[in-house]
Amino acid sequence: MKKVKVAVLGATGAVGEELLGLLVERNFPATEIRALASAKSAGKKLQIKGREFIIEEAKPESFAGIDIAFFCAGGSVSKAMAQEAVKRGAVVIDNTSAFRMDPEVPLVVPEVNPEDIKLHKGIIANPNCSTIIMLVALAPLERHFGLQRILVSTYQAVSGAGVKGMEELDNEVINPNYIPQVLPVASLPKHYPIAYNLIPQIDVFDAEGYTKEEWKMVKETQKMLHRPELGVTATTIRVPVKRCHSESIYVELNKDFTLDEIKEAFSNAPGLVVLDDPENQVYPMPLDLEKKDDVYVGRIRRDLANKRGLNLWVVGDQIRKGAALNAVQIGERLLLD
Amino acid sequence: MKKVKVAVLGATGAVGEELLGLLVERNFPATEIRALASAKSAGKKLQIKGREFIIEEAKPESFAGIDIAFFCAGGSVSKAMAQEAVKRGAVVIDNTSAFRMDPEVPLVVPEVNPEDIKLHKGIIANPNCSTIIMLVALAPLERHFGLQRILVSTYQAVSGAGVKGMEELDNEVINPNYIPQVLPVASLPKHYPIAYNLIPQIDVFDAEGYTKEEWKMVKETQKMLHRPELGVTATTIRVPVKRCHSESIYVELNKDFTLDEIKEAFSNAPGLVVLDDPENQVYPMPLDLEKKDDVYVGRIRRDLANKRGLNLWVVGDQIRKGAALNAVQIGERLLLD
Repeated sequence: MKKVKVAVLGATGAVGEELLGLLVERNFPATEIRALASAKSAGKKLQIKGREFIIEEAKPESFAGIDIAFFCAGGSVSKAMAQEAVKRGAVVIDNTSAFRMDPEVPLVVPEVNPEDIKLHKGIIANPNCSTIIMLVALAPLERHFGLQRILVSTYQAVSGAGVKGMEELDNEVINPNYIPQVLPVASLPKHYPIAYNLIPQIDVFDAEGYTKEEWKMVKETQKMLHRPELGVTATTIRVPVKRCHSESIYVELNKDFTLDEIKEAFSNAPGLVVLDDPENQVYPMPLDLEKKDDVYVGRIRRDLANKRGLNLWVVGDQIRKGAALNAVQIGERLLLD
Repeated sequence: MKKVKVAVLGATGAVGEELLGLLVERNFPATEIRALASAKSAGKKLQIKGREFIIEEAKPESFAGIDIAFFCAGGSVSKAMAQEAVKRGAVVIDNTSAFRMDPEVPLVVPEVNPEDIKLHKGIIANPNCSTIIMLVALAPLERHFGLQRILVSTYQAVSGAGVKGMEELDNEVINPNYIPQVLPVASLPKHYPIAYNLIPQIDVFDAEGYTKEEWKMVKETQKMLHRPELGVTATTIRVPVKRCHSESIYVELNKDFTLDEIKEAFSNAPGLVVLDDPENQVYPMPLDLEKKDDVYVGRIRRDLANKRGLNLWVVGDQIRKGAALNAVQIGERLLLD
């Protein structure tokens, strides 16, 4: 495997820091890892997995000589900087929503559509966390049975709102007088507590009453599966959980199936672990699965009304497979070519 | 309205105590309210809404002279005692699952099927909490459009596991070394934390991988709507919320509809409040709705793939409308006849 120079833009965020840790942990074949952030973090030192990173201010020139640049500093930074990095010869793996729906940009989960990586023109987009976690579980069903319809209700961790979202939950539990200021959407006027609560809003609403998060699950799924007509509906809910997203998923398949066939397809699928032994109270739970690489599926049941319907409970770490790990895995695939 | 003698069996539990409070608060026309519990609570004094109740040990003779007996001490106590109360002339309003599926026993939510009350032969069953909350929202849709299919994923509060479930969440938050012993099911061997977690098990599993709680939502819905063939599937999940249940509900209707027609049907429905103004970040949240009598519906959206499909987010207080209040309302209806 060739050795490359790597940059991580947004190194001080929840995903950026996780990503640096994964590069070290997985021995990513890098001769150099540049940790970039905004001017105000420049000079700051990060100790990650026994290695020290000194933050540099992100400028267009920061990408000179870089082969792979991981972007996780937010959509506006990605829009401003991605072409600068590409111009200097880097492949950008972008963790924001900036380019996900751009028809020129492949949107990739390596377990789902690895072949799309080759179509890139400098930028590869990392999907939204809740979409990644859902599709790792649904890809084997699409492959073996064909998906006819997806209905999903999510239970999403506060880590999806970054370090500040995680701190907000902690603050609320410690201090009953704490006034929420981050969730559901920091830039909107109203903020609500998440401790002992559920917030049925993730990101802003459109005119039809769906949130942007819900649309991401629809549009990104259709794009990655190359099925723009696929019926997908999502209801996305924030829950007082730290870093794993959970999803109650109903799918209709194109073929008849037995549960054994479904479980076999899941067992053979990369990145997916079946945790489904109800009799012994074995099923995926978010608190158990923090910092795990895989996505977990359990509560695998035939629907009670539709013989081609299937119900699942899927859990995955939002920061890891939902963001940083998927980006690193795209980078690893790039190096295989 | 005639005046009656009332007994509350299980007066020391979360639902029993709420029920005593509601009888006082709503000026239930009782000349006497007898608070009954097991021998070990006998003599204990309860101060509720400025009134003192002295607990008596529940015995068959406790029901002599009683007109209405509210049972909330668990299924086995109901099975042992209900006929004793009926024999002595009481109408039993049973809050447990003991008689819900008995074809001789009406299962009633006054907003859904009040006419069934008249069919009783001494016992009227109060449905499961998650079913009550769902059906208050769905009854107007059944009435005006006809339900074709229901798919629900729940977000259920710890109060559903009683006072001990509520204490367990508090203990886990306060003391990181606390060892769970109540959730998901006290009598089963494995217990899991609920703080910062989700547990995809409420009650025990059957051979097909559904929990009893999930079956209750299916069977009780079919019974109350008098539609044994109605397609209902539920996924029930315990969340770290104190006392309101929330539900992400997808329904298919028998007719075309406009969202205005749906909202009008909801607005005219008893016991239901529409809280749906996404632009102003208005939607039902469990922390806001504790101790409210009504059920709240928001996030009212057309499905993205089925033109007769509708998505809803429904929240209601589990102890109140989900249990105690519904029982008291059945009692109030009984007195009207």
